[in-house]
Amino acid sequence: MRDTMAGMDVPVIDNLQYANWSETVFDQMRDGNVAAIHATVAYHETFPEIIDNLISWNRRFAQFPDRIMRATSAADVRTAQASGRTAVLFGLQNPAAIGADLGMVEILHQLGLRFMQVTYNMQSLLGSGCYEAIDSGLTRFGREVVAEMNRVGLAVDLSHASHRTMRDAIATSGRPVAITHANPNWWHDVPRNVPDDVLRDLVAHDGILGFSLYPHHLADGSACSLGSFCRMVAECAERYGVEHLGIGSDLCQDQPDEVVQWMRAGRWTRSTDEGAAFPDMPVWFKGNADFPKLVDGLAAVGFAGSEVEQIMSGNWLRFYETAFEPQIATRHD
Amino acid sequence: MRDTMAGMDVPVIDNLQYANWSETVFDQMRDGNVAAIHATVAYHETFPEIIDNLISWNRRFAQFPDRIMRATSAADVRTAQASGRTAVLFGLQNPAAIGADLGMVEILHQLGLRFMQVTYNMQSLLGSGCYEAIDSGLTRFGREVVAEMNRVGLAVDLSHASHRTMRDAIATSGRPVAITHANPNWWHDVPRNVPDDVLRDLVAHDGILGFSLYPHHLADGSACSLGSFCRMVAECAERYGVEHLGIGSDLCQDQPDEVVQWMRAGRWTRSTDEGAAFPDMPVWFKGNADFPKLVDGLAAVGFAGSEVEQIMSGNWLRFYETAFEPQIATRHD
Repeated sequence: MRDTMAGMDVPVIDNLQYANWSETVFDQMRDGNVAAIHATVAYHETFPEIIDNLISWNRRFAQFPDRIMRATSAADVRTAQASGRTAVLFGLQNPAAIGADLGMVEILHQLGLRFMQVTYNMQSLLGSGCYEAIDSGLTRFGREVVAEMNRVGLAVDLSHASHRTMRDAIATSGRPVAITHANPNWWHDVPRNVPDDVLRDLVAHDGILGFSLYPHHLADGSACSLGSFCRMVAECAERYGVEHLGIGSDLCQDQPDEVVQWMRAGRWTRSTDEGAAFPDMPVWFKGNADFPKLVDGLAAVGFAGSEVEQIMSGNWLRFYETAFEPQIATRHD
Repeated sequence: MRDTMAGMDVPVIDNLQYANWSETVFDQMRDGNVAAIHATVAYHETFPEIIDNLISWNRRFAQFPDRIMRATSAADVRTAQASGRTAVLFGLQNPAAIGADLGMVEILHQLGLRFMQVTYNMQSLLGSGCYEAIDSGLTRFGREVVAEMNRVGLAVDLSHASHRTMRDAIATSGRPVAITHANPNWWHDVPRNVPDDVLRDLVAHDGILGFSLYPHHLADGSACSLGSFCRMVAECAERYGVEHLGIGSDLCQDQPDEVVQWMRAGRWTRSTDEGAAFPDMPVWFKGNADFPKLVDGLAAVGFAGSEVEQIMSGNWLRFYETAFEPQIATRHD
């Protein structure tokens, strides 16, 4: 009981969610003390479809003004937290909507987006995805886009990228980058997880890894225990430093299986994956109300209270404070 | 000489321009002490074309960081002025790009736009234009859009609207509205100019009239004298109050005649107006460097220095201070 109460005191920033947004989900965010989420507004959407998604979010903000607020900065997250609401930041998991137009990067930032992945699983115009047979790394255009993202303050997200693309982008980026939702592949070796050397590189450039709670990224999948997950986090703190760790749950709460089928196939293939289904979430993390359990689990493996707070929100908040402002000097002077 | 120096001391906000933007134009803005302009980013453009126009502006901001800066607020205008630059606010002269989607209003605001006309000359989905044979006023959708513009802080611009549309919008709007670029029709009676009763209505609701310097809106057209123009302004101050007057020059500096042909015909008609040409500007107002002459002209007809400053920038700045912030309470609660 005492542990649960402790868990309730720690604010949470979950730096990747794609729930089937509803009043229920927003209620659970309050129950889970979620100060902010980074919400995906595009997997395969075109630019007009992204605008539609943003319009849907604007409707939600108007409908639930006491639960959620639109956010583009660390200050907004603090405002949300002080008023018992959840701040919602926007990001793209796929850069397809910018086409080959560098100017679209700043437009996305001006629309309020704050994260963009360089690729979603597949080869993009920017780089190789984690499931391509040949990993050719960051493209010429990808280098331009990373520089432009640096200039305008759109944070680079390397989730779903190939390892070489990750290495290239970390080396190229003039500002810290994020892997918002993945785990180390020495804990669970799948293409979506990240090699040790990339993570060392990431943190050497002051970047952040957001731990995923999506079962395919967990050792033992849906059966993964809270202890196993938290011991992995503790090992990461040893290797990479606690100040470089956060949460990016990849929670797809209440989404029907059609959504994961669409995530995989988009419109880029005719071979649908109709059997694909969302895996069961671990019993200790079914949704936004369960973050206090994670807080308690981290305390149980020996993290100090201040460290737990860093992992659960402090590190992302620090990242937000510096990542989203445009650079004063332009690269085009 | 002393008068010219006085003119140079007064900052200018020109609340409507559509120049052929260039370093020369930006230099002349500095020469004219122009603290801010409201720049049109759509006459007939689709939404993707508006995005292209904004990308072009972003390129200009990166290219001329010591001359111009993107602005969305009165605070931005003050920042620009303090650093010897010109603030650029964006607006649409045509609501066509929102289609019949109320959600697009907030998207435009989130993209940084701050003004939108309800119609450009013709019938729109929102209301009648000033050149329609039948003036049916603000439509059902138009009333919704005005309320939504009020909610999000996108200022209503009634330039180019029919008189009934103006009256309806002024009555409907919960916040002050603007007629950014027009003159009273008792001075020069053309459909683009505004009847006395509409102007009294406008200012009774704390709105602003921006005086146009486009020759078709001037008594005697291109031959209009500075004295005649300034006496008209003085008469407006008597009738409507000096605090409700500003400048919206409608300056199309350095634009080729193809642009005015396109403004008139867009793609809505096959009957092109190939003979259409930009009229010669009055000798005393050829461009942005000439604002000090207008300052001197206003002083010459008896305006006090503080009144001249109100007309040249103070009133628009006050309008900006209150018009662009979203309302706290939503209409959709």
